[in-house]
Amino acid sequence: MHLEQIDSPEKLKRIPVKELPRLAEEIRKFLIESLQVTGGHLASNLGVVELTLALHYLFDSPEDKILWDVGHQAYVHKLLTGRRHLFPTLRQYKGLCGFPKMSESEHDVWETGHSSTSLSAAMGMAVARDIQGKKNRVIPVIGDGALTGGMALEALNHIGEEKRDMIVILNDNEMSISPNVGALHNYLGKLRTHKHYHKIKEEVEFLLKKIPTVGESFAKTAERIKDSLKFLVVSGVLFESLGFTYLGPVNGHNLSELMECLRQADKTKGPVLVHVVTVKGKGYEPAEKDAEVYHGVGKNYKLEAGKLQKKPLGGPIKYPKVFGNTLIRLAQEDERVVGITPAMLGGSGMNEFKARFPDRCYDVGIAEQHAATFAAGLATQGLKPVLAIYSTFLQRGYDQLIHDIARQNLNVVVAVDRAGFVGADGETHQGVYDIAFMRCIPNMTIMMPKDENEFQHMLYTAYKYDDGPIAVRFPRGAGLGVALDEELQELPIGKGEVLRQGRDVALFAFGNMVPLAMQAAEQLAQDGVSARVINARFAKPLDGELLDQLYRERMPVIVIEEGSAIGGLGSAVLEYYADNEMTGMTVKTLGVPDYFVEHGSVDDQRREVGLTVDNIVLTARDLMPRLQQRA
Amino acid sequence: MHLEQIDSPEKLKRIPVKELPRLAEEIRKFLIESLQVTGGHLASNLGVVELTLALHYLFDSPEDKILWDVGHQAYVHKLLTGRRHLFPTLRQYKGLCGFPKMSESEHDVWETGHSSTSLSAAMGMAVARDIQGKKNRVIPVIGDGALTGGMALEALNHIGEEKRDMIVILNDNEMSISPNVGALHNYLGKLRTHKHYHKIKEEVEFLLKKIPTVGESFAKTAERIKDSLKFLVVSGVLFESLGFTYLGPVNGHNLSELMECLRQADKTKGPVLVHVVTVKGKGYEPAEKDAEVYHGVGKNYKLEAGKLQKKPLGGPIKYPKVFGNTLIRLAQEDERVVGITPAMLGGSGMNEFKARFPDRCYDVGIAEQHAATFAAGLATQGLKPVLAIYSTFLQRGYDQLIHDIARQNLNVVVAVDRAGFVGADGETHQGVYDIAFMRCIPNMTIMMPKDENEFQHMLYTAYKYDDGPIAVRFPRGAGLGVALDEELQELPIGKGEVLRQGRDVALFAFGNMVPLAMQAAEQLAQDGVSARVINARFAKPLDGELLDQLYRERMPVIVIEEGSAIGGLGSAVLEYYADNEMTGMTVKTLGVPDYFVEHGSVDDQRREVGLTVDNIVLTARDLMPRLQQRA
Repeated sequence: MHLEQIDSPEKLKRIPVKELPRLAEEIRKFLIESLQVTGGHLASNLGVVELTLALHYLFDSPEDKILWDVGHQAYVHKLLTGRRHLFPTLRQYKGLCGFPKMSESEHDVWETGHSSTSLSAAMGMAVARDIQGKKNRVIPVIGDGALTGGMALEALNHIGEEKRDMIVILNDNEMSISPNVGALHNYLGKLRTHKHYHKIKEEVEFLLKKIPTVGESFAKTAERIKDSLKFLVVSGVLFESLGFTYLGPVNGHNLSELMECLRQADKTKGPVLVHVVTVKGKGYEPAEKDAEVYHGVGKNYKLEAGKLQKKPLGGPIKYPKVFGNTLIRLAQEDERVVGITPAMLGGSGMNEFKARFPDRCYDVGIAEQHAATFAAGLATQGLKPVLAIYSTFLQRGYDQLIHDIARQNLNVVVAVDRAGFVGADGETHQGVYDIAFMRCIPNMTIMMPKDENEFQHMLYTAYKYDDGPIAVRFPRGAGLGVALDEELQELPIGKGEVLRQGRDVALFAFGNMVPLAMQAAEQLAQDGVSARVINARFAKPLDGELLDQLYRERMPVIVIEEGSAIGGLGSAVLEYYADNEMTGMTVKTLGVPDYFVEHGSVDDQRREVGLTVDNIVLTARDLMPRLQQRA
Repeated sequence: MHLEQIDSPEKLKRIPVKELPRLAEEIRKFLIESLQVTGGHLASNLGVVELTLALHYLFDSPEDKILWDVGHQAYVHKLLTGRRHLFPTLRQYKGLCGFPKMSESEHDVWETGHSSTSLSAAMGMAVARDIQGKKNRVIPVIGDGALTGGMALEALNHIGEEKRDMIVILNDNEMSISPNVGALHNYLGKLRTHKHYHKIKEEVEFLLKKIPTVGESFAKTAERIKDSLKFLVVSGVLFESLGFTYLGPVNGHNLSELMECLRQADKTKGPVLVHVVTVKGKGYEPAEKDAEVYHGVGKNYKLEAGKLQKKPLGGPIKYPKVFGNTLIRLAQEDERVVGITPAMLGGSGMNEFKARFPDRCYDVGIAEQHAATFAAGLATQGLKPVLAIYSTFLQRGYDQLIHDIARQNLNVVVAVDRAGFVGADGETHQGVYDIAFMRCIPNMTIMMPKDENEFQHMLYTAYKYDDGPIAVRFPRGAGLGVALDEELQELPIGKGEVLRQGRDVALFAFGNMVPLAMQAAEQLAQDGVSARVINARFAKPLDGELLDQLYRERMPVIVIEEGSAIGGLGSAVLEYYADNEMTGMTVKTLGVPDYFVEHGSVDDQRREVGLTVDNIVLTARDLMPRLQQRA
C-alpha cells in the first residue's frame, strides 16, 4: 500500500512492519515536493516521520490522545489521517492549517502553536480519562526546546506527582528553532551519548572491576565511586526524581528500536518519558545541515546546486534586520546595552549582534517569563536591556511585564516583534492583543513606527528613554523600502505627527496602518473629501494636543490599528475624549474584530477584517452625510 | 547589643557569633508582639530568623544583593536594616510595606509579591555584575513552593548553563501557603531525610561491604547497585544535572551549621544551591502546628488558651466560602465538575471541596500556566473544570487563557478571586487589570456579582454556560450579609439589571461597586437628582438594550468599576456607543487610575482613587449643569 491509499491510521496498521521504512521514504518525498510549492515547516516534520508512523501504527488515535506540542511537526500526522489531498492548500487562506486543528480531524485532539502546552493538556486528558473510567492512552509529543518552557516544567511536576498513566515522548533534536540552550539541554546532551541500554551494563562492569582499590583512602574511593557512578546512575535520574520512568535514549529513525521502546513504555504503569533522539531535517541533506534555515521555508525553496534559493535581492529591508542593526549601533556606543531573546535569535535578527557582542546577548530558550524578569534584573543594576519578543509570546510574560518591569518602573525596552497579523502561522500567532493588554499597565509607553526608518528612530528613542518601560511594536516582514537616516533621532514622547492636512475627516493611524491611511486619503481627495492623516506614533501616552485640535474642529476620527479593536488605540481615543468631557465626537475604530483570525496571507487577513485602503475610504465616505449635517 | 540598637547590617556584624541565638530570640519576641497588633505574615518570618541573621552577618548588603522571593518573609531583613520603628505601621496606609520596597531601603534590591521571580532577577543582577566588572555576591532566597513556579524553573535552566557565581538559598519549609505539592516537593522530601553529609559516607561504606556478592548474577548485582546507589548519588543530582553545586540539606535554625554551609557556598565557583531546611512558624508553637492558619494573621490573633482567637461569629459569609459551597453543590449534582487551584486551596475556600471530592480537586502548586491549560485539557474531554485563581495571579496564565482556553473556545469556568483592591498586600496583589486584559480576548464572557447571593447564581450560570470560557470575578473578603437563595438560578448572559429607576443620570456599576452606586443614588435623591442604578453584571458581552435605552434618553452615564479605568468596563461602554454611531453621549468612568495603588485598607485605597459614595455623588452633581443645558 502506498501513501496515497493511506487515509487513516486503520489503513496504516494493515501494512506489514517491514514496509514502513519504504513508506517513510514516500512521506519524505511527498513533504519535500509539496512544501516546495506551498512552503511550510520542513525540517521538523522530516525529523518525526518514523516517530509519527510508530505512534499511529502502535496506538489507536483518536481514542488514544496524541498531542503535538507546538504543532508545526504534525504534517506527517495530517498525512496519515486523511488530509494528504489538502496539502496544496497548506497554510493558505481557508486551506489546511499548519498546526493541529480540531475542526479538520477528530485525530487533532489538541490545538497548538505556542510551545510547551502539551503536557498540561495531556494531564487534563489523563485525569478526565480516569474520572470517566476510560482506558485510553495519552501521548504528548514534546521537543527538547519546548520542555524548557516554564509551563512544561510545571506540568512535569504535577504529572510526576499524580502518577497517572501517560507516555511522554521527548522528541530530542537539540533544536528549538535556534539551537537549544540551557542546562536541561546540556543534561539531555549527556543522556544522548548513552546510545543503548547495554552501555550501562558495560560501565557497571568496568566500575566493579576497579573497586575497592587497595591503597586508596576510603573517602577518596567513595568520591571516585560517586563521580563515576553519578553519570551512570544519573541517566534519566532528573526525570526519575520527578516521578517518571525514563526510557531511552532511542534512535528516532530506527523503526524497530523505536517501536520496541514504545511497547515497553506502554507496559509501564504511571508516567513514562521516552527519550527519542531525532535529526531535524532527516533525509534531506541541506535541511539536516542547516535546520534553522529550513525550520520554516518560504514558498520557493527549490534547490540550486545544493543551496537554498534565496528571494531576489533588492527588496526592502526586513524589520528584524533593522532591529538587529540598530541594536548593534546602540551596543557599540553604550556598553550598558544588553539584548535578550527567548529562543528567537534568528527570527529577531539578532545573530549578528550575538556574534559581535556575545557577552551582551542572551538567548534564554523558550522562557518568556524568565526573559522578562531577567531583563528587569539587569535594569535594576543600571543596564539597558532590550527584550526582543514576538507580540504573541509576550502574552507568556504578561505578569512579569506588569509585576516586575512596570511596577518597579524599570528601564526595559520591549521590542515587540510580529505585531499585527502574521499571515500563514495563523490564529495562534497573531500579534493583535498587545496594545490592549499593555495599555492598561501603569508606567508603560507604547509606540509603533510607520516605516523602517521611523522604527530605528523609535528604537533609539526607547533606548534614550529613562522613565520606565517602553515598548516598540513592529510588524512581521519587510519595510516599505524607505531610506534609512544615517543619524538616529530621538522622537518626542507622546507626540504624533500630521502627515497630511485635511478638513473633513481625520485618519488616526498606528504604525503599519499609516501607509494605508495615506493611500486612502489620496483616494478620498479624488472624491473631494479632504482627509487629515495622523501618524499616531504612540498608543500611550496619547498626543492630547492633536486630539484637542480635532475636537475643536469637531472632526470625525477614524482610528486604524492592526490590533484588537477592543481596548486598543481606538478605545484610548474614546477614553481621552470622555475623560476630558469632550462630547459629541464621532470616533470610528478600524481594528481587529472580536474573533480569532485564521491563517492566510497578511493581505487575506486584512481584507477579511476590513483593514484595507478601500474600507478606510468607504468608512470615511459613510461619515460624510453626518459631516454635511455638521456643516 | 540588643535588637533596638541594631539598625544596620554593620551593627549586626559587631555582635559576637555566640550572641546571635539570643538575638534570634529577641527578634521572634518582637515579631510575635508587633504582629499581634498590626497583623502580617507571621509564620514565614519566624522561619527565617536565623537564615536572615546569617546572611546579613556573613555577607555585605546592599553591595551583595539579597533577593527575597515572594517577599513576605522579609520582615527580619527589614528589622535588621533600620526599619524596626516602622513596624507599628506595617501593611497600613502609607506605612511599612509587607514586601520589599526599594523606596524604603537600599537593602531592598528587588521588589516582590508574586512568587518565583527572584532567580530570574538574580540572573540579571549576576550578568550585570560581570558586565560591570564588579565582585558582589548575588543571593536569591526562594522557598520550595516558589521553586515549582515555571519561571523559577526557566531561570534554573538559564543559571545552570551560564555558570555565573550565585548563591541560591532554597528555603525549604515544605509549605507554600498551603502544604506543598508536586514531584519536586517529593524529591526535596527525600533529600531532607539526609540530615548530614557524613550520612552519605556511611551509606557508601555499607554498600561497599555488600558488593560484589558471590552467587548473584551480574545483572542482578548491577541492578541492586543501581537501586541502592541511586538515592545516595541522587542527593542533589537533580540540581547538579542542571549545573548547580548542591550543598545541604542544612538545619536552618542551627546558626553555626548554617554559617559554615554558607561559607562553603561562598567559596564555590559558579551557581550553588544551598538547601536550607526551616520550620515555618519556628519558635511559636501554635504557628509551628498550623502554619497555614498563621501564614498571614489578622490584626488580632491573640491567643486564648492556646488557640487563635477568631473574629466574632455572625459576620457576613466570605466570598471564597460561597465559592467553595457552591462548587460542592455543583459537584454533587454533576460528576463532570472538577476544581483546580494553583496553591490556594485554603484561600480559595476549597478545603472542604477537596475533602469531599479528592479525585476532582487539584491543587497544582504555584503553577498558574499549568493550571489554566490543565483546565483546558479537562474541558476538551467534556469535563467542567472550574479554575479558581486570584485576579493578580491570572496574569501568570494570560497566554494560556488566550491561546489554550479561549482560542479553542473551551468550557472553562474561571473564578477570578480577589478582583479589585486587596488591601494590605498592596500593589503587587491588586486585582485591577483582569477586566481590561480579558475583555480583548475573543470568546470570553466576563461577569461580576453585586453581592454574595448573585455570586452563587453567577457561578451556576457559568457552570451551565456551554459556549466557551466564562469568568466570574469577585472581591476579596466578606459579602454584604444578604440571604442566600436556596435554589441556584441561571442568569441571562449579557443582561444587566436596573435596580433603581431614574431620569437624570445613570450609575452603571459593576459587581462590588453596585452597593456604592445605590447609596449614592439615595444621596442624590435628597438633592433632587434622580439617578438610575444599573447593575451591569457583564463586562462582556454588554447589555445593548440597556445602553440603547440610555442613548435614547441621552442620559449621562457614570461607569463605576474597581478595575483599571483604561480598557475596562467604561471603555466597553464607550466602544459600544462609538461602534453603534451613537454620538453625543456623556460617559464618565470612575475606575482605578493609571498608577500602582499601594497597600492600606481597601477603604483607604478606594478613597485614594475616588471609588466612594461621595465621589460618585460629586461626579453626578458635576454633570448636572450639562444636564440642565440638555433640558
